[in-house]
Amino acid sequence: MGLKFTVVAKDESTRARTGILHTAHGDVETPIFMPVGTAGTVKAMTHDQLEELEAQIILANTYHLCMRPGHEKVREFGGLHRFMSWPHPILTDSGGFQVMSLKGLNKVTEDGVWFSSHLDGSRHFFSPEGVMEFQLSLGSDIIMPLDECVDYPASHETLNRSVRLTSRWAERSKEFFAENAATLRGSDFEQAGKSDLGPSLFGIVQGGTDRELRRESALEICETCFDGYAIGGLSVGEPKEDLYGVTDYVAGFLPEDRPRYLMGVGTPEDLVRCVALGVDMFDCVMPTRNARNGCVFTSAGKLVIKSARYANDAGPLDPKCGCRVCRRYSRAYIRHLFAVGEMSASVLATYHNLRFYLDMMKRVRQSIKFGGFGKFLSEFLENSWQESHSV
Amino acid sequence: MGLKFTVVAKDESTRARTGILHTAHGDVETPIFMPVGTAGTVKAMTHDQLEELEAQIILANTYHLCMRPGHEKVREFGGLHRFMSWPHPILTDSGGFQVMSLKGLNKVTEDGVWFSSHLDGSRHFFSPEGVMEFQLSLGSDIIMPLDECVDYPASHETLNRSVRLTSRWAERSKEFFAENAATLRGSDFEQAGKSDLGPSLFGIVQGGTDRELRRESALEICETCFDGYAIGGLSVGEPKEDLYGVTDYVAGFLPEDRPRYLMGVGTPEDLVRCVALGVDMFDCVMPTRNARNGCVFTSAGKLVIKSARYANDAGPLDPKCGCRVCRRYSRAYIRHLFAVGEMSASVLATYHNLRFYLDMMKRVRQSIKFGGFGKFLSEFLENSWQESHSV
Repeated sequence: MGLKFTVVAKDESTRARTGILHTAHGDVETPIFMPVGTAGTVKAMTHDQLEELEAQIILANTYHLCMRPGHEKVREFGGLHRFMSWPHPILTDSGGFQVMSLKGLNKVTEDGVWFSSHLDGSRHFFSPEGVMEFQLSLGSDIIMPLDECVDYPASHETLNRSVRLTSRWAERSKEFFAENAATLRGSDFEQAGKSDLGPSLFGIVQGGTDRELRRESALEICETCFDGYAIGGLSVGEPKEDLYGVTDYVAGFLPEDRPRYLMGVGTPEDLVRCVALGVDMFDCVMPTRNARNGCVFTSAGKLVIKSARYANDAGPLDPKCGCRVCRRYSRAYIRHLFAVGEMSASVLATYHNLRFYLDMMKRVRQSIKFGGFGKFLSEFLENSWQESHSV
Repeated sequence: MGLKFTVVAKDESTRARTGILHTAHGDVETPIFMPVGTAGTVKAMTHDQLEELEAQIILANTYHLCMRPGHEKVREFGGLHRFMSWPHPILTDSGGFQVMSLKGLNKVTEDGVWFSSHLDGSRHFFSPEGVMEFQLSLGSDIIMPLDECVDYPASHETLNRSVRLTSRWAERSKEFFAENAATLRGSDFEQAGKSDLGPSLFGIVQGGTDRELRRESALEICETCFDGYAIGGLSVGEPKEDLYGVTDYVAGFLPEDRPRYLMGVGTPEDLVRCVALGVDMFDCVMPTRNARNGCVFTSAGKLVIKSARYANDAGPLDPKCGCRVCRRYSRAYIRHLFAVGEMSASVLATYHNLRFYLDMMKRVRQSIKFGGFGKFLSEFLENSWQESHSV
């Protein structure tokens, strides 16, 4: 069987809840933020640092791992957990988002999607069954089916077609998964000591900002019955009110006893707001990518640390943060590292940003568990963190 | 006063000895390898990682720090220890080597050297007095005087001129240092709690591969009297027999009660061989730069880890190494990180290479202290590590 999900506590006035995802590679407390480890590594971090940061689960990209080193190679190593020496839970995406972002390079058919590798232009084909096989070879704990992501804005016709195709692909994925998960799943599931927990398969709801299509998609995907449900196709350029509005609307159709995953979202504000709407899982490149670009998150807002204005600032990145970086280094020093192009700049900024995201989610969980989520939410939004607010 | 140097034990059949350099920022056990932290950071490492690796002292480059962020800026922060949050000993070079490597961009006069910044072409002047002031502003524990480094091979005339100029500059440096060290030294020397230990000044012996000039240089530099003595101008392209021969020859002229520092050297073999010749201190970019280029040091020789031949190798970088990297990651995974261009590749390889160098020197110290250096040396050279030997 796939993952077990236990809801531990619920907020009284919102849809927020805290719980535990039980997987073969360990438990994950929700709501959770999953750092993105595209090519089998969270950029600029060692696994020791991720463990110190209490990252409980990471996301890896099927597309990138299929290109290099290849899913067969990872399978030969006994799965991704062993290949990358990360014994904790891993979620893999379907690769669909990457494939469909290769503008002009892909062709979507009923059977799947043709695309050219961004590395050497070689032609490849991803089918719903194929990406199941890839992710089972990777030995992922949580597997995502191939879906069609469309650009924003999209016509009703385009959205409608993508919702129907995504539903048909979801059924094919479920069927292939049900028949092959036990035989194809990575060999380390048995050795993880919880042989009753195998890989899980989530369903993905599409439909852009069209409420009626979102409703239909949610109902069709739930009808097929998955271990958890993801909301895809958001954070692609739509207004914030649509991000929150669609998430709120879709979450209402998803079963309460299954985890809800909002894909590719988002800012700190997005995360705490969407927890209130009932979301349990998030992933986003924002904390890691922003860090490498010299932008850090603090309790008082965003801070472009590579800016010359911090050249004389002897204070820590965030006076309210207790991470290794804030305990040791000044803004001036980290700014210097960015100015001279040292990779340590990316390392320190990434470490701090992940701490910011992971610590924020820990406080979210605690506030739900101990009954102060409403207060946390309003304080976080009103007093400390504003989307547009820079230090 | 500058540093105190205590010889703790001597090898019976070579000039090898183990001892302690006492500095205001802590003790350093010799023989020691100093990782190079060019711009105020050892590339790809955090300070926490350096401390875990038991790096006792690092080298920082005056030239780079004068260009960015500038020695005045570092002085305003209370010195380099505080600016970079590294409370342990720091040695700074004079910047002369970098300046004189800027081919066609410099002009050496009796007063000093004119050069153009590699960053923006702006004109700068380094004098013997100037680089004393720069390094005192940086708050360095061990300061190096401006010397003239010449290319290999060089004519007797060129070498002779450089030896004389280096001697005159050494005297001017000593004079300036004696008059200004107490007032210009970084403010954290007092706060380091050992106010009797201030910055130290080393002398540098030049003379290329010319034994007679090396003898004269050594005698002149010793005559001026420094806290320690460095052998410069080696590892610039001369044959290995000259590297070892000149080091052996010069070390014989240097006082036994002062530390000897062989600048910019070298390979693992160079280090253990030169310890036998009486050298106490080493610095080299080799472990860190090689790591970033995908080449690691192991107990069985060098290993080009980025090579495709390791794509299926589930073993650690070095089966005899107990470092964090070798305990956790496979060669195949680290090779994958290099193949996909992840900075974690540089981080893991650098960590391992520094561990290899630092652990080797620790074993050198132990073997001298407990009487097995001769055995260590022959085993290291004959059985395990050969310059040309690759795994």
